[in-house]
Amino acid sequence: MKAVRVHDYHTDPKIDDIAEPELQGPLDVIVKVGGAGVCRTDLHILEGQWAAAMSPQLPYVIGHENAGWVHAVGDGVTNVAVGDTVILHPQPSCGLCLACRRGNDMHCANAFFPGLSDNDGGMAEYLRTTARACVKLDPSTNPADVAALADAGITAYHAVRKAVPVLWPGTTAVVQGAGGLGHIGIQCLAALTATRIVVVDKNPAALELAKEIGADETVVADGSHVDAVRDLTGGEGATVVFDFVAEQGAENQAWAMTAPDGYQYVIGYGGQFSAPTLDFVAGEKNVIGNIVGTYTDLAELMVLAQAGKVTLHTKQYPLDAALDALHDLDAGRVRGRAILVP
Amino acid sequence: MKAVRVHDYHTDPKIDDIAEPELQGPLDVIVKVGGAGVCRTDLHILEGQWAAAMSPQLPYVIGHENAGWVHAVGDGVTNVAVGDTVILHPQPSCGLCLACRRGNDMHCANAFFPGLSDNDGGMAEYLRTTARACVKLDPSTNPADVAALADAGITAYHAVRKAVPVLWPGTTAVVQGAGGLGHIGIQCLAALTATRIVVVDKNPAALELAKEIGADETVVADGSHVDAVRDLTGGEGATVVFDFVAEQGAENQAWAMTAPDGYQYVIGYGGQFSAPTLDFVAGEKNVIGNIVGTYTDLAELMVLAQAGKVTLHTKQYPLDAALDALHDLDAGRVRGRAILVP
Amino acid sequence: MKAVRVHDYHTDPKIDDIAEPELQGPLDVIVKVGGAGVCRTDLHILEGQWAAAMSPQLPYVIGHENAGWVHAVGDGVTNVAVGDTVILHPQPSCGLCLACRRGNDMHCANAFFPGLSDNDGGMAEYLRTTARACVKLDPSTNPADVAALADAGITAYHAVRKAVPVLWPGTTAVVQGAGGLGHIGIQCLAALTATRIVVVDKNPAALELAKEIGADETVVADGSHVDAVRDLTGGEGATVVFDFVAEQGAENQAWAMTAPDGYQYVIGYGGQFSAPTLDFVAGEKNVIGNIVGTYTDLAELMVLAQAGKVTLHTKQYPLDAALDALHDLDAGRVRGRAILVP
Amino acid sequence: MKAVRVHDYHTDPKIDDIAEPELQGPLDVIVKVGGAGVCRTDLHILEGQWAAAMSPQLPYVIGHENAGWVHAVGDGVTNVAVGDTVILHPQPSCGLCLACRRGNDMHCANAFFPGLSDNDGGMAEYLRTTARACVKLDPSTNPADVAALADAGITAYHAVRKAVPVLWPGTTAVVQGAGGLGHIGIQCLAALTATRIVVVDKNPAALELAKEIGADETVVADGSHVDAVRDLTGGEGATVVFDFVAEQGAENQAWAMTAPDGYQYVIGYGGQFSAPTLDFVAGEKNVIGNIVGTYTDLAELMVLAQAGKVTLHTKQYPLDAALDALHDLDAGRVRGRAILVP
Repeated sequence: MKAVRVHDYHTDPKIDDIAEPELQGPLDVIVKVGGAGVCRTDLHILEGQWAAAMSPQLPYVIGHENAGWVHAVGDGVTNVAVGDTVILHPQPSCGLCLACRRGNDMHCANAFFPGLSDNDGGMAEYLRTTARACVKLDPSTNPADVAALADAGITAYHAVRKAVPVLWPGTTAVVQGAGGLGHIGIQCLAALTATRIVVVDKNPAALELAKEIGADETVVADGSHVDAVRDLTGGEGATVVFDFVAEQGAENQAWAMTAPDGYQYVIGYGGQFSAPTLDFVAGEKNVIGNIVGTYTDLAELMVLAQAGKVTLHTKQYPLDAALDALHDLDAGRVRGRAILVP
Repeated sequence: MKAVRVHDYHTDPKIDDIAEPELQGPLDVIVKVGGAGVCRTDLHILEGQWAAAMSPQLPYVIGHENAGWVHAVGDGVTNVAVGDTVILHPQPSCGLCLACRRGNDMHCANAFFPGLSDNDGGMAEYLRTTARACVKLDPSTNPADVAALADAGITAYHAVRKAVPVLWPGTTAVVQGAGGLGHIGIQCLAALTATRIVVVDKNPAALELAKEIGADETVVADGSHVDAVRDLTGGEGATVVFDFVAEQGAENQAWAMTAPDGYQYVIGYGGQFSAPTLDFVAGEKNVIGNIVGTYTDLAELMVLAQAGKVTLHTKQYPLDAALDALHDLDAGRVRGRAILVP
Repeated sequence: MKAVRVHDYHTDPKIDDIAEPELQGPLDVIVKVGGAGVCRTDLHILEGQWAAAMSPQLPYVIGHENAGWVHAVGDGVTNVAVGDTVILHPQPSCGLCLACRRGNDMHCANAFFPGLSDNDGGMAEYLRTTARACVKLDPSTNPADVAALADAGITAYHAVRKAVPVLWPGTTAVVQGAGGLGHIGIQCLAALTATRIVVVDKNPAALELAKEIGADETVVADGSHVDAVRDLTGGEGATVVFDFVAEQGAENQAWAMTAPDGYQYVIGYGGQFSAPTLDFVAGEKNVIGNIVGTYTDLAELMVLAQAGKVTLHTKQYPLDAALDALHDLDAGRVRGRAILVP
Repeated sequence: MKAVRVHDYHTDPKIDDIAEPELQGPLDVIVKVGGAGVCRTDLHILEGQWAAAMSPQLPYVIGHENAGWVHAVGDGVTNVAVGDTVILHPQPSCGLCLACRRGNDMHCANAFFPGLSDNDGGMAEYLRTTARACVKLDPSTNPADVAALADAGITAYHAVRKAVPVLWPGTTAVVQGAGGLGHIGIQCLAALTATRIVVVDKNPAALELAKEIGADETVVADGSHVDAVRDLTGGEGATVVFDFVAEQGAENQAWAMTAPDGYQYVIGYGGQFSAPTLDFVAGEKNVIGNIVGTYTDLAELMVLAQAGKVTLHTKQYPLDAALDALHDLDAGRVRGRAILVP
């Protein structure tokens, strides 16, 4: 089969012809890929940023945002059958450790992450995953339309869902960064809460789109945005600041935009957060970490997607054009999400 | 192997010599039974009370409170190995349905219940269960000492744990029924909260024991106990009433003992709860259902047990004396829990 | 001033000319009434149903759903000033008991309820309340447009808000009874959650309206509705059933529509709930009581109302026509809510 | 009356003879002080550290940890009467803002803080506070025995109480700093949870005491303590790290001791917390701010204290010896808490 493989860091991947993956255990599932999202993390992998943490043996197949159809199942698989349309949680989990048993599968002690850890990913015709990663979809769903929800989507959804208990009518939530993830976050906020949504971004076009999908207020991130958010909130700041940027100082501006008794949600990364401990005490302010969402987050997000409450702009490329997609993403030429279709 | 099997309802089970259970799927586990609790539900099974709901094919082996050592594992099992000491959650679950994925495995859509559903239970030398039912114990643990926590224990623990968020210092919790389950419930309350514990029971000896294990106040259930609880709570009633009886009127007395904004936890069963809907509105009172605990409840309870915070009186019988154990239980001759040791 | 006073039970109230209320304590507030909702509870008062519970000295002024303008304030009042537009929580609370200190002011140990308890209500030109009952509104708000949210509104909002943590995408909520309160409940559900909303009512016109304001599915309460709800939920029932009827058997049908691990919210009243305790145990099902909402519920609901997310059909009557309004309500001639405007 | 007043920063306060405080509003309460705790914050006030934030007009009376007897009440006060024994929440709140209405009175929009803000404190014979600051005690209570719970106590209690929902059996909680507050925190953890308590401190004597009051494990903070905590937790770190130090690098060691999916509670202050945003994302770790506790925290803590579950070592000084107490505290000569007794 054809597959996009990283052979060396700091150079383009290649489209190779390799053997199809095979079932290795009783809970394994082979999926025929119908759509594989192209993520900024893929660029970071190519830059070698994940080499030390994940130690994949090169060459290997990237692609961690996948949907498709079940092609083969191990003899312990009972939740999906050959032919089912599925979207795949990016991190197959064991179902046996205490984290999994609490429904907290992103903290599984025995998980792997195809396309990121030392396991082949989904920019290929077929992918090996496991039963616990498969969310069954309506058979009419086109996998290429939803693939990007598998990773970008649940990351945004997970953060928003955790914040729902504090976002009552009368509160303000700031979304800092209205790109791929922020864009989904805004829609999730509008679907799950009645909070006032203030969106902060450098890009006026992104703010324009934000208004169409649920933003109540938009603020250009031009240096005066911390003050602007304070003005919009009676000087207090927002109850929750969802920081989808979290680098280049945004992570500390987020803190300045967070109200006493409020929460800064870190979702992006790259920067260094720093604050006096007195800030935490005098204002009783909090910083909340956010990892990719759980399996049930993905299942819930698919309900929103199939109801039309969360939609995603995508640009499809044939698998053969994977390099074009990666280059377009790197050059800022992709609106929404690039999706490879084998 | 020897096994205690029900051949007909309304008659004693027999101790038969049958084939050992075998692995049927990749996640199966065969456990050499080290202790099997004898539960009032076993008597109810013999009376035919579960025949319609569970439809087991007779003869079958009873026993749903089990602990022992792993004897064989399927090829998908990664959490336990042959020789491990384990206690078994009574209801093996699938790990794939949404309830399991939320950590709510007691509501698994695909579970079975050995010794109750149409599957052989643990009053035998060996038992078939699955990986997801096994909680690994310190190798030095004697399974017969802890087996009763597998079912009676987690039922009480589950209810108490759910109530912790409302049982702050200054509140009162009533435990109605200080028998097998209530007895564990009192210890769990003392371990997990600083609420005032009021125990209500007909039996003065049970109340005496209750005081030793954590009760702050005891009330004899002699007809004036509703008034007594009201007197102890400034006329208001208790924040939570744990009703381990829930039959013969106790279920409605529990309601009368529940304060406005309070919670009646139904754990026992057999009675008919009835109240005007106005009671729910004027007092904002609640009735909370409680099923057997989850896998993580069992894991947590074992931590309490191994720390000596929850202890259980047991009386051991050899497997051959199973009928004695059942007769003793039926006749009220068992203090604590009868345990069969194969 | 003019006021609608009950002189005897089982007879029409009279419109009397009485002295204006005066400040009695430092936290008192006199409000010039701008709108007073006419509620079914007013009819029940006239029937004497509340005589024993509340023991008001006759004659007294009824009316417990009020909004208007601040007319005078005691010397301890700091949150409102003369001239402010306000909506009034129906139950002034002390702010000093533990329930108030937890934000749970509906369980205040020292509250009163003008128009219901032995205190004059708001069907008059002026009303005495306290600082803690006043929610300040945008000065442009017409009190008559929002008065009905003060009691009917927050009762529905309170129940919905409590249920938000379990109503994730993929769940189903049933609203039984799409009258005054249910109608607000549907809008609150649509504003605060992405659950699927199924509305059950006998009245096809009410169901038609329900669809316009957020119902995903409607079911005629014609005797087959329990089965219809089960069919809509894969045989399981709904995660939450909001029962705004709770009489004439609806309270037990609600139970039959509630899924395992689900919640029946009792909001209406009049009937007798009854179920085997085994139902609570085997299904881990719950019954949740619901009283009028808190002050913060009212504040939050006003945010929804001012954002246009919750709207209310009202029919205004001059205060002099109070008897017409009461008669119209009794005869089923009021669409939405009747409001007296002094 | 005699009172300890700050006349200038960086110099000892003086014991002046001044007029007794008077009632200023209908909710005011004058308390005859029975015990006033001496807190490190008092030293910081003398150093001028609070001058900018609080801007008190000098001279003023310090002392923010007070208990005593009600001496006079305003005409709106209904919860206490002259002669009542009371402990005082340090921050009288308005009861009218939204934060107060949610029970979150520490975030009151209109509060003051006697002895810290520009209001005379409790190192005097009498103190002016308000009805909402008074927790009524059993008349037999000696105010000097409990005064320190009014500030130090509720700060520790508040943090522990917030963490209870994640501290189930099997988890580990680290208490960093077993001084005045940490000492109470350990007792609160032992009273409210069954978590394993690991205490970290530089002082072996403090660790010895920690063991007596509930620590399961102690670790000397000698530079290897982060590794020691990791070793005690299977390499993972603790579910919650309560950082009562939060300066001189402890705040970042606390982060290193916090497990993935865990929480660092900042309670002490003085340092600068700093971490890569990637830490928050990869580990889903959180930093939780903690301010002084609420009124209900104080009420609950008094229940623990009166049950003997939380005890406090105190050293009493006559009011005239206030300078001795301050000097002893500064020089590290106070075991437990210094209390002035007028």
